[in-house]
Amino acid sequence: MPSSAESLANLPLRDDLLGLSPYGAPQVDVPILLNVNENTHGVPADVHAAIIEAVGKATLGLNRYPDREFAELRRNLAAYLGHGLSPDQVWAANGSNEVLQQVLQAFGGPGRTALGFPPTYSMYPLLSSGTGTRYLTAEREEDYAMTPEATARAVRASAANIVFLCSPNNPTGTALGLDVIEAAYQAGEAARAIIIVDEAYGEFAQEGTPSALTLLPGRPRLLVSRTMSKAFALAGARIGYLAAAPEVADALRLVRLPYHLSAITQATANAALTHARTLLSNVEAIKVQRDRIVAELQRLGLRPSPSDANFVFFSGLEDPHRIWEDLLAAGVLVRDVGIAGSLRVTAGTEEETTAFLTVLGSLLESQRDDQSQRSA
Amino acid sequence: MPSSAESLANLPLRDDLLGLSPYGAPQVDVPILLNVNENTHGVPADVHAAIIEAVGKATLGLNRYPDREFAELRRNLAAYLGHGLSPDQVWAANGSNEVLQQVLQAFGGPGRTALGFPPTYSMYPLLSSGTGTRYLTAEREEDYAMTPEATARAVRASAANIVFLCSPNNPTGTALGLDVIEAAYQAGEAARAIIIVDEAYGEFAQEGTPSALTLLPGRPRLLVSRTMSKAFALAGARIGYLAAAPEVADALRLVRLPYHLSAITQATANAALTHARTLLSNVEAIKVQRDRIVAELQRLGLRPSPSDANFVFFSGLEDPHRIWEDLLAAGVLVRDVGIAGSLRVTAGTEEETTAFLTVLGSLLESQRDDQSQRSA
Repeated sequence: MPSSAESLANLPLRDDLLGLSPYGAPQVDVPILLNVNENTHGVPADVHAAIIEAVGKATLGLNRYPDREFAELRRNLAAYLGHGLSPDQVWAANGSNEVLQQVLQAFGGPGRTALGFPPTYSMYPLLSSGTGTRYLTAEREEDYAMTPEATARAVRASAANIVFLCSPNNPTGTALGLDVIEAAYQAGEAARAIIIVDEAYGEFAQEGTPSALTLLPGRPRLLVSRTMSKAFALAGARIGYLAAAPEVADALRLVRLPYHLSAITQATANAALTHARTLLSNVEAIKVQRDRIVAELQRLGLRPSPSDANFVFFSGLEDPHRIWEDLLAAGVLVRDVGIAGSLRVTAGTEEETTAFLTVLGSLLESQRDDQSQRSA
Repeated sequence: MPSSAESLANLPLRDDLLGLSPYGAPQVDVPILLNVNENTHGVPADVHAAIIEAVGKATLGLNRYPDREFAELRRNLAAYLGHGLSPDQVWAANGSNEVLQQVLQAFGGPGRTALGFPPTYSMYPLLSSGTGTRYLTAEREEDYAMTPEATARAVRASAANIVFLCSPNNPTGTALGLDVIEAAYQAGEAARAIIIVDEAYGEFAQEGTPSALTLLPGRPRLLVSRTMSKAFALAGARIGYLAAAPEVADALRLVRLPYHLSAITQATANAALTHARTLLSNVEAIKVQRDRIVAELQRLGLRPSPSDANFVFFSGLEDPHRIWEDLLAAGVLVRDVGIAGSLRVTAGTEEETTAFLTVLGSLLESQRDDQSQRSA
């Protein structure tokens, strides 16, 4: 529990941290948790067994420092990603947040800037300020869309050193066209900008949505970050990674803490990657529920955004915070991302999705009843 | 493998990183590794079993984000440390390097300074530069000693925002008197300096050497950092922690990455702490070998520093790099810390210690034979 601001005043905290609150999606214990885009299917039994076996082996040597180069993990990640990537084009850290922090430490920092397109992943400004990088923002088009032309203009106008492109975007859920990424890359040429495409939810893409991995050849300033927290159902294991030119890994080696990936983290990730097919088998089931949520919310008269992710952002609510509270009271936790009229919900199992849709449906109905009574 | 500096030049690396080499104690595969102060005894069988059981349970929920507040771990760490500490006075991260990095992010950073007393832990300047904190240094007395008076003078003269006191000091091995720490704290009053006592090797202290934990009451700017890498034989698990006033944890909460400690890291640490007594039973055996190394090196005509750690720093070598190479050729890896005439060796098992002392003894003897032949 945080103590009072008073006792914090005893300490010589940095000026830019004064008065801030720590990051915190609420960690509440309710039956149906659809608030932080976890994979609610859990870890399959054979993957569980494989992880325990791998961790058991790693624990035998736990008195030794881990492989600082996490060579086996990089081989496995490169093989999983495909696209002709080699292990020296892959880098990993404790969650994609740490990957992004290292990118900011290497290419951002004091005197440099990063550009984001809100509403987008809420950690970009926090990671920027944590590394002394000034965070700039540019606007999106209607319905949170981004066009190649407007994106290129924003990249050029900002002259940012780092550009965050979140695809599919969190919290709105829609993926970017490759033309947007290409345009951003080209527009960043003058400032030699690092273009980082955050594909944390890449595995949930709609049929036909391509990955920015296809754009890597010949683009040394392009970085594609991923995570094992979502499709791989390993949020608790904290494993993020990126693919880029080999010299990007060389740069990150200069700023990463030595031995930043524990031997048990490496073992867990390696076991999971060896069972990638099993772990990813739930992705299709999640996409079915995701598409079902979009269809049902439309039927309920709301405006869901098209989603390439394992969550759905929807607008058209009169009082989203009240709906959020009433859902919570009914045991369903979703995310209030602070955008007018909107909420975000994770696509869970079929049962969880049914529970969410049923509760939301009756909440909206009783709202309508109230209104018609008032107007009667 | 790092690529060439040429391809790194393709990238907009920060100016202060240009030309740097990544941190790297060599990771070489030889029979006797006494170079990075690991606990060479390994993880006892019952602790191994407890870790696997705990990780197995944690893996069942690995699809969920971990407890961001690592409440159970903080309870266990507080109970282990004793000294009347409560869980809200304890903080943990992925290795004490990450703990120190968070301290620098909260209290250091651009426009602020940190003070170290070299020769000391080589990560202090790297962590400082990685967070934009200017790193200042002050001199030690003869034989690397620190007195209360000289330390207080250096703290006052530097007006540093953060003061690193490594006790026992790495690489020299000797612990600081509490009077030095008290003097540093008092001298830091004017600049409201954070005084961080790095007790990574605290459990190996000689009988009667007190911990800076005893000084915490009433000193909100005093931080004592520890690690599970050494005495707990868990270098591969990356668990560092600190004890301080509760508001220090509040400050670190503002800069830590959300969910920075994975569920398996928390489970591993909790299992190990539940078996602290078994794990620490090797500490006494290591101290016996440590004291044996000091005695034997003196007998060999060298000058070992008094050690409160699991390693011994020794001077009096004519050509330390050649000795380092010859030891390596004989299968014994020690650390060349770059100090004239000196090397550092970890106290391993009795067999490892015997091997080191035997090889070193014959190397010194054949050196003497060479010299007497040359002078004959």
